[in-house]
Amino acid sequence: MTEKVKIAVDLMGGENSPDKNLEGINLFVERNQKKNDYFFYFFGDEVKIHNKLNKYKFLKNNYKIFDTKIIVSDDLSAISSIKKGKNSSMWKSITAQTELDADISLSAGNTGVLLVMSKMILKTLEHVDKPALAGLWPNEKNMNVVLDLGANVECSEKNLIDFSEMGSALYKSLFPNDKAKVALLNIGLEEMKGTEVLKAAHAKLKQLDKFGDFEFNGYIEGNQITSGNSNVIVTDGFTGNVALKTAEGTANFLTKSLRKALSENLFSKISTIFSYFSLKRFKNKLDPRKYNGAIFLGLTGPVVKSHGGIDGLGFYYSVDLCYKIAKGKLIDKIKSNLAHSKNINNNNEER
Amino acid sequence: MTEKVKIAVDLMGGENSPDKNLEGINLFVERNQKKNDYFFYFFGDEVKIHNKLNKYKFLKNNYKIFDTKIIVSDDLSAISSIKKGKNSSMWKSITAQTELDADISLSAGNTGVLLVMSKMILKTLEHVDKPALAGLWPNEKNMNVVLDLGANVECSEKNLIDFSEMGSALYKSLFPNDKAKVALLNIGLEEMKGTEVLKAAHAKLKQLDKFGDFEFNGYIEGNQITSGNSNVIVTDGFTGNVALKTAEGTANFLTKSLRKALSENLFSKISTIFSYFSLKRFKNKLDPRKYNGAIFLGLTGPVVKSHGGIDGLGFYYSVDLCYKIAKGKLIDKIKSNLAHSKNINNNNEER
Repeated sequence: MTEKVKIAVDLMGGENSPDKNLEGINLFVERNQKKNDYFFYFFGDEVKIHNKLNKYKFLKNNYKIFDTKIIVSDDLSAISSIKKGKNSSMWKSITAQTELDADISLSAGNTGVLLVMSKMILKTLEHVDKPALAGLWPNEKNMNVVLDLGANVECSEKNLIDFSEMGSALYKSLFPNDKAKVALLNIGLEEMKGTEVLKAAHAKLKQLDKFGDFEFNGYIEGNQITSGNSNVIVTDGFTGNVALKTAEGTANFLTKSLRKALSENLFSKISTIFSYFSLKRFKNKLDPRKYNGAIFLGLTGPVVKSHGGIDGLGFYYSVDLCYKIAKGKLIDKIKSNLAHSKNINNNNEER
Repeated sequence: MTEKVKIAVDLMGGENSPDKNLEGINLFVERNQKKNDYFFYFFGDEVKIHNKLNKYKFLKNNYKIFDTKIIVSDDLSAISSIKKGKNSSMWKSITAQTELDADISLSAGNTGVLLVMSKMILKTLEHVDKPALAGLWPNEKNMNVVLDLGANVECSEKNLIDFSEMGSALYKSLFPNDKAKVALLNIGLEEMKGTEVLKAAHAKLKQLDKFGDFEFNGYIEGNQITSGNSNVIVTDGFTGNVALKTAEGTANFLTKSLRKALSENLFSKISTIFSYFSLKRFKNKLDPRKYNGAIFLGLTGPVVKSHGGIDGLGFYYSVDLCYKIAKGKLIDKIKSNLAHSKNINNNNEER
């Protein structure tokens, strides 16, 4: 018998909970009926959950509910959340990794609070200074891992090297047959370009290439993020957050303009009938729900943050992400990768 | 008689010069035949220019050629370009502001060299520490000015305040009937978010709001750049460059995916016939050539950089930009705005 992946889910986080959460998990089970290698720990209001369960027929014998009445509100600061939050569904879903045998935790609640709680409970991995927030980003060939997306406003060269190793481990967990290809986000391709921190990280990453954790592709500029030539895009949390949101904004702006153009007269309206399926496939490929789920990297256990305002299908993708991360042994891969960069970082500290 | 705007053009910079340059200028004259308030100084190889002029029938009595055989090559570093470049078309087109009576200079040559030469010749304005590179960016209502786009990798709070005042002056030169609305690009909207530099700039910009040079809208995130609620987007050169190129990359990625979707089968191909004009208008509105032209702000005279690889229509837009900037009295507006921020910045330096 294969060991089951145990996914601890905060059912109360985000909008429309626990509905969208249960809907997403139900869909995951429906799509993975043949597998019998997963189990869910549910954290939330048991009565509310029970009232919903009859709608989700695939949820049976594959979960256990832990009754937790307190919900981390989006309005609270991280500090006040934590004071009253030790009995919350969010806190409990993380402690499921230390107190139960959960492999990974998932919540759609407040990002800042989830990050603080995760750090408190799971602790930072040895040799890592700062955990990072990694996300998925479509590219022309497949998908990128991009980090940091906002956990660390300012980053040292060591942080960027840790992010490269951890991001590569995440990429390999999700796509075991692909090679992780790291690139540093910069404002030019020449080695002399960019900040001193970037130049130092560039030099060290060239040395780390030989360990085979990743191929190092040097610098890329913002317009090459989606090219697919690199798939682990490393940057500080400020730049990463701005880049991600600018890309989202640009995509919304373009699709809004396109929709307007295609509905402005009869001819263009007719055209959408003919192109319906093509446009649907286009939308489908780039559906942001497919990229739902940011991953906290650098803690002793993996924590995934689903978008708060996402629907059931979007939550499904974050459940699927959790399953893949746990099956892919992410934490083992991170530890193995960090062992390679340890020496290089040590040399650095001695300077 | 109205005084004529004199635009000094480096005809040899960028790809396909002087063709695309002449084509763009010719189009500008064609579209502004009724006006008689502009004049061009051409810098480049007189023989080559003369050979082309018969193609451009609107170019007569509205230009003067200054024969300059040396061209700044894209392969040269800024330093070696300057050594041999003092007789180049680029250098001469900038000195046209100090040695002739030109109001503005335009080149499609190497950005770095143009920036260094411009600083050497025109000098930085009093009270400005660092000139910035500003660009135009479409938004849902009209257009943004975004700066810095890469001239300054690291920026102080004073730089960001200068950029706000200079960017607002540029916006008002281009759109005299609109209000300049400044926003600082950040990774969250709350005042506590972001770097110390951003927080300090935020506090000072709130004080400057009262002078009426601009309305200060606080922070925005990357996904709000195109909303149109703010139109002068201020950030450091690293973040601005990454954001601009990420937006370009996202737009290319989406249009490529869309084109693929719309040509994959017979039905979708038919649809493009029906939607031809709508799609054309969509493309037209977002045509990057319309936003061609980066402006160096903070020098005693204005310099515009056209994209090197742009075509004649794209070059036309940068000529039109030069005309508007000169007519809008950009440098006077910048000086007037900087007089307001001077005191606030002085207080800052005394701390």
